[in-house]
Amino acid sequence: MEKIEKQIKKDENFSEWYVQAVMHSGLFDYGEVSGTLIFRPDGYYIWESIQKAVDPLFKEIGIQNVYFPLFIPKHFLEKEKEHIEGFSAEVAWVTKGGQSELEEELAVRPTSETIMYPAYSKWIRSWRDLPMRYNQWNNVVRWEFKHPTPLLRSREFLWNEGHTVFATREEAAAERDQVLGIYKKVLKEYLALEGIVGQKTDSEKFAGAENTFSIEFVMPDGRISQGPDFHIDGQKFSKAFDITFLDKEGKRQYVYQNTFAISTRMIGIMLGMHGDDKGVIIPPKLARIQVVVVPIYSEQNKAEIIKYADGVKENISKDFRVFVDDSDAYSPGWKFNEWERAGVPVRIEIGKKEMESNSVTLFRRDTFVKESVQVTNLAVSVSKLLQEIHENLYQKSKSLIKTKIIAVENYEKLKDAVKSGYAVKALWCGDKECEAKIKEETAARSSNIPFGEQENINGVCVYCGKPAKHRLNFGKSY
Amino acid sequence: MEKIEKQIKKDENFSEWYVQAVMHSGLFDYGEVSGTLIFRPDGYYIWESIQKAVDPLFKEIGIQNVYFPLFIPKHFLEKEKEHIEGFSAEVAWVTKGGQSELEEELAVRPTSETIMYPAYSKWIRSWRDLPMRYNQWNNVVRWEFKHPTPLLRSREFLWNEGHTVFATREEAAAERDQVLGIYKKVLKEYLALEGIVGQKTDSEKFAGAENTFSIEFVMPDGRISQGPDFHIDGQKFSKAFDITFLDKEGKRQYVYQNTFAISTRMIGIMLGMHGDDKGVIIPPKLARIQVVVVPIYSEQNKAEIIKYADGVKENISKDFRVFVDDSDAYSPGWKFNEWERAGVPVRIEIGKKEMESNSVTLFRRDTFVKESVQVTNLAVSVSKLLQEIHENLYQKSKSLIKTKIIAVENYEKLKDAVKSGYAVKALWCGDKECEAKIKEETAARSSNIPFGEQENINGVCVYCGKPAKHRLNFGKSY
Repeated sequence: MEKIEKQIKKDENFSEWYVQAVMHSGLFDYGEVSGTLIFRPDGYYIWESIQKAVDPLFKEIGIQNVYFPLFIPKHFLEKEKEHIEGFSAEVAWVTKGGQSELEEELAVRPTSETIMYPAYSKWIRSWRDLPMRYNQWNNVVRWEFKHPTPLLRSREFLWNEGHTVFATREEAAAERDQVLGIYKKVLKEYLALEGIVGQKTDSEKFAGAENTFSIEFVMPDGRISQGPDFHIDGQKFSKAFDITFLDKEGKRQYVYQNTFAISTRMIGIMLGMHGDDKGVIIPPKLARIQVVVVPIYSEQNKAEIIKYADGVKENISKDFRVFVDDSDAYSPGWKFNEWERAGVPVRIEIGKKEMESNSVTLFRRDTFVKESVQVTNLAVSVSKLLQEIHENLYQKSKSLIKTKIIAVENYEKLKDAVKSGYAVKALWCGDKECEAKIKEETAARSSNIPFGEQENINGVCVYCGKPAKHRLNFGKSY
Repeated sequence: MEKIEKQIKKDENFSEWYVQAVMHSGLFDYGEVSGTLIFRPDGYYIWESIQKAVDPLFKEIGIQNVYFPLFIPKHFLEKEKEHIEGFSAEVAWVTKGGQSELEEELAVRPTSETIMYPAYSKWIRSWRDLPMRYNQWNNVVRWEFKHPTPLLRSREFLWNEGHTVFATREEAAAERDQVLGIYKKVLKEYLALEGIVGQKTDSEKFAGAENTFSIEFVMPDGRISQGPDFHIDGQKFSKAFDITFLDKEGKRQYVYQNTFAISTRMIGIMLGMHGDDKGVIIPPKLARIQVVVVPIYSEQNKAEIIKYADGVKENISKDFRVFVDDSDAYSPGWKFNEWERAGVPVRIEIGKKEMESNSVTLFRRDTFVKESVQVTNLAVSVSKLLQEIHENLYQKSKSLIKTKIIAVENYEKLKDAVKSGYAVKALWCGDKECEAKIKEETAARSSNIPFGEQENINGVCVYCGKPAKHRLNFGKSY
């Protein structure tokens, strides 16, 4: 890892800090093509672990994995009108194979509805074929021309895309809480993140969906950021792609569909949330190296200290992912910095003092607190510490929701809050126009209409003064 | 699944049988773009299971997963001369993003050397950074214009690509047997396949490699087919991409590199090998459904028989992946055919007789043998049966190597054998010209120079009559 020229503070300039922390962590590197990202081992490990957490939970509720081709013929992509309008500006097109021009241009999938649903139309015949709940883990390309931000706005990203089919609107609707529940569980238990579950407004829903639901986050700088989402497509795609079935009475019906996704964008939200001025912090379950052992030795005691350090590793490596950094090339202080920058949750320091007292010094990355621990109980201490780190990160992300979203009663306060680096919660009449005006005048876009906060709405729209229908979160966004 | 018009026999026309068996199995479907394939749940399950078998073995020997971008800028792809010559005719090019022409055309990765190695060149500084053993599981595109064959020749396929870096030629060389050992183990223990490990000739090696090693198969029609491979790249790419390190003496050195892969092509080889006139046969460890239970009932006893069948499922579903096909839509006979076509290894038939005697009828897909088994010991019987099926498939693939590769002493016999549907083993002088002439005149291309068969070469080249250096397998190929 290279030396950092200038240390940007998270509090002072979050977005510059974010890029620096993420790109100096050693987890990623820039791809040659602008807006693309390389996942190095510790970065890819995070994504692999998220997959391994989500995938069995999908399987438990009856979702099966499939794989559809990367390339979508142009005439497929154009079948659903709103969908192509939403994506046409950001599609990467393959026009040549070898030296030959292709007869029809092929889209590199920005999402797979239009390549999957012609097959669904063939496969589904009767009510017996339903529900059909498929998912794929793959890469997608969205050739955005906005300023790219590592993970948060990448031209290629990795995700799951669930595409499920039901006989009735009710069955389709029932899947929503199942799937959002899985995402929320993994966010909490693996990414140590609390999010806000709710419904997107019509202006912010997915291109082609009837309704979009999302888990949203508020970043430490008060900007909002969208995580996993779930789309109720109703019969919009089934009508465009002629996906029908014979019901039990022998009548032909259009199916009801949902789609849902979690993507590598979520890693960006997580790193932005947990990191500090030293760099990123990886929640323990997602860290390829959970514990780094740094021996501190002189020429004289090098051999015995390294032996002691290796013994400590052996002691706990059955239970944790441990690495001993015994390289001669760098000083202990340099190593401390490097592993802090890389976000490894626990460091074990071992010097003469520790060796002589049959102990180690445990350092936790999130609070910088050190404690001396006897080797006899090390596995228990480390386990407890990793749990505490996870819990601390999670609680911090939870309290951010409270401190960084301000409920505002009028438009002046909304503008002030957004200007001062906060997201806001405001009453809204439900009118697209008001939402658009707020975005135009303050740069705050709507986040979602949070579940569980829609009771007792007795007031007026923060913009137009007409009776309010919803409590809606707004903020500048990533 | 649709009705098959005409049943093609495996013995009579293997290649037509193959396409029919694979495409009527319900495991796959054709993509809209010619040469692309859809993996349906039971098809993708096979690939997922192969990944889950290979990946931990890679991790055990120190290989880590990474992810590199899909798109390769044209000037990167052109850096290694032999490499671009090998791939240029089959690259899919992205030339437009949204409505805009791109400044530089982007290749959709046919393989990732040229996008990974510029990063390697930045990352690797000293001997301390080595070895660096990275791998990725991803999708690649090779826009071949030859006749596509499902799985065996697809324009997009899924694979692992290992890209490892070492300080010395010796260390790099030592990785070969580790990796080929892993592939061979998974082929045997999961795909129930025996392959032939050996070295490719210079004409058949990977574009840019010094030497290629492969695991080869001979199909039931005597055609050869290449499975996983391992390439010793030496310093060819490190010189093209300037990947150097400071050795312990402080001298700058070029690194030594290897690459290796197993792809979804292997599923095609497996299904072609194991299948029969009824359809495909999936080895038990790779079958999403290992046991299908088919209840046989009348109007009168339907409820009790289905209850009994569900009980049988419950009895064994802790240990096996079981599905009860109690659909009213089809007759038992129709279901038998369908599940045989889908390759499910074991069927349990349950009728009145079975219910009354507290037994089931076990049917094995590979030999069509039925046996009656008491429910009390069912898990043990099923476990034994699945093992026997696996072993039988494996032994058959092994014996095919013996019966379908004929050792020939002269060119006339070589030509006869190839014409009669065999692969051949022949002495060869090592000269490219002889290899090319044989290919031109017989359509048999060289497979590999098998390990363990290169002792006591006292004879002459089957083509030119000069002293022989190698025993080489030849055959028409898939």
